[in-house]
Amino acid sequence: MGNQIRLGIVGYGNIGRGVQAAVKKNSDVALSYVFTRRAPESVNVNDASIKVLSIDEIENYTNEIDVLILCGGSATDLPEQGPAYAKLFNTIDSFDTHARIPEYFESVDASAKPNNKTSIISVGWDPGLFSLNRLMGEVVVPDGATYTFWGKGLSQGHSDAIRRVQGVKAGVQYTIPIEEAVQRVRNAENPELSTREKHLRECWVVAEEGADLAEIETAIKTMPNYFADYDTTVNFISEEELKANHSTMPHGGFVIRSGQSSDNTNHVVEYSIKLDSNPEFTSSVIVAYARAAYRMNQEGLYGAKTVFDVAPGYLSPKSAAELRKELL
Amino acid sequence: MGNQIRLGIVGYGNIGRGVQAAVKKNSDVALSYVFTRRAPESVNVNDASIKVLSIDEIENYTNEIDVLILCGGSATDLPEQGPAYAKLFNTIDSFDTHARIPEYFESVDASAKPNNKTSIISVGWDPGLFSLNRLMGEVVVPDGATYTFWGKGLSQGHSDAIRRVQGVKAGVQYTIPIEEAVQRVRNAENPELSTREKHLRECWVVAEEGADLAEIETAIKTMPNYFADYDTTVNFISEEELKANHSTMPHGGFVIRSGQSSDNTNHVVEYSIKLDSNPEFTSSVIVAYARAAYRMNQEGLYGAKTVFDVAPGYLSPKSAAELRKELL
Repeated sequence: MGNQIRLGIVGYGNIGRGVQAAVKKNSDVALSYVFTRRAPESVNVNDASIKVLSIDEIENYTNEIDVLILCGGSATDLPEQGPAYAKLFNTIDSFDTHARIPEYFESVDASAKPNNKTSIISVGWDPGLFSLNRLMGEVVVPDGATYTFWGKGLSQGHSDAIRRVQGVKAGVQYTIPIEEAVQRVRNAENPELSTREKHLRECWVVAEEGADLAEIETAIKTMPNYFADYDTTVNFISEEELKANHSTMPHGGFVIRSGQSSDNTNHVVEYSIKLDSNPEFTSSVIVAYARAAYRMNQEGLYGAKTVFDVAPGYLSPKSAAELRKELL
Repeated sequence: MGNQIRLGIVGYGNIGRGVQAAVKKNSDVALSYVFTRRAPESVNVNDASIKVLSIDEIENYTNEIDVLILCGGSATDLPEQGPAYAKLFNTIDSFDTHARIPEYFESVDASAKPNNKTSIISVGWDPGLFSLNRLMGEVVVPDGATYTFWGKGLSQGHSDAIRRVQGVKAGVQYTIPIEEAVQRVRNAENPELSTREKHLRECWVVAEEGADLAEIETAIKTMPNYFADYDTTVNFISEEELKANHSTMPHGGFVIRSGQSSDNTNHVVEYSIKLDSNPEFTSSVIVAYARAAYRMNQEGLYGAKTVFDVAPGYLSPKSAAELRKELL
């Protein structure tokens, strides 16, 4: 297609590979460039039509790319890359350190706006689609409460935390919403729920040979911020079992809004997702927002944006008239 | 509040009363005027601060009202009122004849745009929130199928159809999604479902004295468009039972998107609502979009709009910075 939106990727990890998969499901976008900090020849994208280039060359490609997708992490990559590349490209990222979003937004906005670029930050499902549903829930049921549950799903951050425990060779952690809490929320009880009452944490751990298992279990269960406030189970398994049973990245969750429009008149609104692959779904959301970034930029809507700033119609390849006819 | 958005209502039926209730839950909006085709003194709004006026006076109030909410029906009221009042006011309506939305949009747009007014049409939950979720579902899972289920809920159109049957004194109809079909969709089976496989229709009928019940039942069950394509049950009850058990207007439903991002990698996205009062919830959605219409008009976004054209941030009384901090 001559009019495809030309995407580029920075960083070829789980999200980068997910974007590559998502592009195949969206005929109006094309992926031609992957930029990497690694030696380009060491990165195999399994597609001869995609050029793998050193990140140092990226400034030479401003005319070849309509939207650059930043696939790095929120801890160290994006705080640098976001503001740096928003000067040169329209960008999308999935910055997900909730507490630091306001400052990140400002730093990207300061780069994008004076350069007539459009950057949509914090795209994915949380932040992203779940954020949208938190907003929609409170505007349509203003007198009520919002609940977000995550899982059952593999949490990357908590899996990393397990792997830092002495004596742990490998491991993964699943976040599991507690069914009773979900049911109480669905029943419009508007319960006050403690951290422990909302989610369980389930760990599958491969220990180093000769490690003290009881010590590992205690270290995990008492770890502040990550596990101490939750009911946590620790299961020791072999490396083979880990590989066989715990190597995919399913996830999911719920956003539930419950409240009343007048006395004794209750409403419950629920958004839920069940994903076989967290990174592939996240990347699919990212590609839809890349389309929006390109179109908003064409219309002169410059600067940093979030999902709250994007009219839903921009996300679809269909025209506004088609959307009204087919989907309204 | 000095800066409240000033709303007016045309037509004081279920939706008009719902808007009145919703205004009480949204401190940034105020309702001061109700316009009616009835004799104003015959309409009791139970609130001395609201003036009830004849619709014939409405042109004198263009400076008193920021957004006019059109609460009439889609069959005859809105096709006239929409284009007529979009010349004079920012408007919101819940036009819900899906097949006629494109032409209605054009007629409202032709009035609103040259007069620098903003009119958001077809607001509510279907069309409205369900439409949004149909769009979001197909953009985040482009290779998949979308299913909309309605109910369990009272359908006004089907209840009206029952009441037109000879020998029927009163009656209501509930649309009920078939649980097995919903489960198959949730299980990512992407089934092909006939009309009959998706919903049941349950009728509660009060017959005129001496009417032939078997004849009524046959007339309902074989009625084309409304009942013939469904498994329909007809229950005869007394007028007292109808009043006691079937006088509220609950409703609800589901929009489910299911598909895959790559081979054998499935995702299921579901939006569901469970409402004690269909008109109160619809009206609450309308008030949120009235806020958006006012702000979009302030920013020069004129013409007819749909939910697809409204960036979610416009719906909330919170600032963009607050939304990023609290909800993203």
